[in-house]
Amino acid sequence: MRLKYAIVGSGALGGFYGGMLANAGNDVHFLFHNDFDFVLKNGLRIDSVLGNFHLKNINAYQSTNEMPKCDVVLVCLKTTNNSILKAILPPLLHEKTCVILVQNGFGIEEELAESFPGISIAGGMAFICSNKTGAGHIVHLDYGKITIGSFQGENSELINNICHDFINARVPAEFSEDLKKSRWKKLVWNIPYNGLCVALNTTTEKLMNNNKTFELVRDLMFEVVYAANGCGVKIDEDFVVEMLNSTRIMKPYAPSMKLDFDFKRPLEIGAIYSAPLAEASRHGIKMPKVAMLEQQLHFIQDSYLKR
Amino acid sequence: MRLKYAIVGSGALGGFYGGMLANAGNDVHFLFHNDFDFVLKNGLRIDSVLGNFHLKNINAYQSTNEMPKCDVVLVCLKTTNNSILKAILPPLLHEKTCVILVQNGFGIEEELAESFPGISIAGGMAFICSNKTGAGHIVHLDYGKITIGSFQGENSELINNICHDFINARVPAEFSEDLKKSRWKKLVWNIPYNGLCVALNTTTEKLMNNNKTFELVRDLMFEVVYAANGCGVKIDEDFVVEMLNSTRIMKPYAPSMKLDFDFKRPLEIGAIYSAPLAEASRHGIKMPKVAMLEQQLHFIQDSYLKR
Repeated sequence: MRLKYAIVGSGALGGFYGGMLANAGNDVHFLFHNDFDFVLKNGLRIDSVLGNFHLKNINAYQSTNEMPKCDVVLVCLKTTNNSILKAILPPLLHEKTCVILVQNGFGIEEELAESFPGISIAGGMAFICSNKTGAGHIVHLDYGKITIGSFQGENSELINNICHDFINARVPAEFSEDLKKSRWKKLVWNIPYNGLCVALNTTTEKLMNNNKTFELVRDLMFEVVYAANGCGVKIDEDFVVEMLNSTRIMKPYAPSMKLDFDFKRPLEIGAIYSAPLAEASRHGIKMPKVAMLEQQLHFIQDSYLKR
Repeated sequence: MRLKYAIVGSGALGGFYGGMLANAGNDVHFLFHNDFDFVLKNGLRIDSVLGNFHLKNINAYQSTNEMPKCDVVLVCLKTTNNSILKAILPPLLHEKTCVILVQNGFGIEEELAESFPGISIAGGMAFICSNKTGAGHIVHLDYGKITIGSFQGENSELINNICHDFINARVPAEFSEDLKKSRWKKLVWNIPYNGLCVALNTTTEKLMNNNKTFELVRDLMFEVVYAANGCGVKIDEDFVVEMLNSTRIMKPYAPSMKLDFDFKRPLEIGAIYSAPLAEASRHGIKMPKVAMLEQQLHFIQDSYLKR
């Protein structure tokens, strides 16, 4: 069966993943916002470490009302825009559509399930360095693996097929047996680097090269690991070492929240900080340094959004 | 008995306190660094909410070697310069000289006692908003009270006389029965406001007007109060409320660490953060948010001092 894909949010992430799928011959339908006119005329360009390509004719749309019902919806929006999902998703859904939230953070599948009871939901964790550098132009710098886990635990066959499509399109993809665990593991990286790069207006590389912030990054990672374990999700302490090591050898990269800060966009504080803090708190666990970072990020965001 | 005063570090603090004492007719000897030539020629100007005055002829020195032995030495340097005390204090000391560290932080009297075993040491807590705005020019904006406590607990008569001199010079002064407690209480204010004004590049007023940083200020204050209590120094939780309220009505003011940051000077991280963290840790107490602030401040300071 050939799957029909919808890409909701065709930016750094959606543009890359959708572009790779389309380039490999899959049936992909892209929702664009500001870039629609540009892409209709000029197509979508992907400059990737895997090789550059230019999709001159793609199925581009300005509204989901014009899009076909799809088997798979890849939601690649920032979580700060998730409030629009309730309005824009329905035209894309048939009885068995699987909506995959390829997003950072925590608690987002729960929110979607509340808005759309009964639909099939999955979570996608993208381990990728990619940026949108201009209209219809994605630059993929490094990594790219996507891990997909079922929210309800019942659509594993479909998710495995999706993983196959990704792998055939040269995107490493993995089925996660435990979405919650995958989400917590992603937070072990996201919580220190995203927030500190904003709070200290810096880069992952500089954080790693200073003794005190290296220590702070590690402290934050351990708080997340302990919280996960306290919430019944077993993550090994070795995972912290693994994350520190892999970040050390990573090419210099600005985490997505740093880019949001630089461009004065809303920060994903809710999904990356507040939701895991709330989950930990429900289990009686404190993450004081994570909480402090959340407080600082709110102050920083308020200083440019609430004028 | 008329006391002879030495002012070591005649800046925002030493210039004001020494100036007030001198203006009231006390015998005051000022050590200047960069401003020596200027002050010798132009004197010392104090613009104060208590009334402006200009001391045209003051006992100004460039080196303690030229100064008389004094009964009281007010050390008004930044703690980041305390390493020079060992070299510069000896010419000022007679058998009964009392050295008062009018400085922020913790553990500084202990350090001085190690360098000068047997001398009489006191600590001074200045509750004051004053700035040095130019060579030989101090602007006193608000408050001004000085609290002095004995380190060894044996020179209370002399300290009471010093307090009288201050009061006669229109500076509110109080003898502290418990220096350690006074130091911890000062930290309840200094730890949140100094560090956060630097880390978030902001003012006390903005910290207080944002819900999240108001909460963070309060969290930091409670960590300090709990640590003090755990170290055997009883501070009431009400003191946090008192500090929050008095800061709310304070005139907008940049804490000294913020000025140090703005002028790319070393920050008093050791005395205000590392020393109390170490003291708490010796008693098995963690101050995670205070520790995180210390880590961030080191990163920030390193970014301009370690190039």
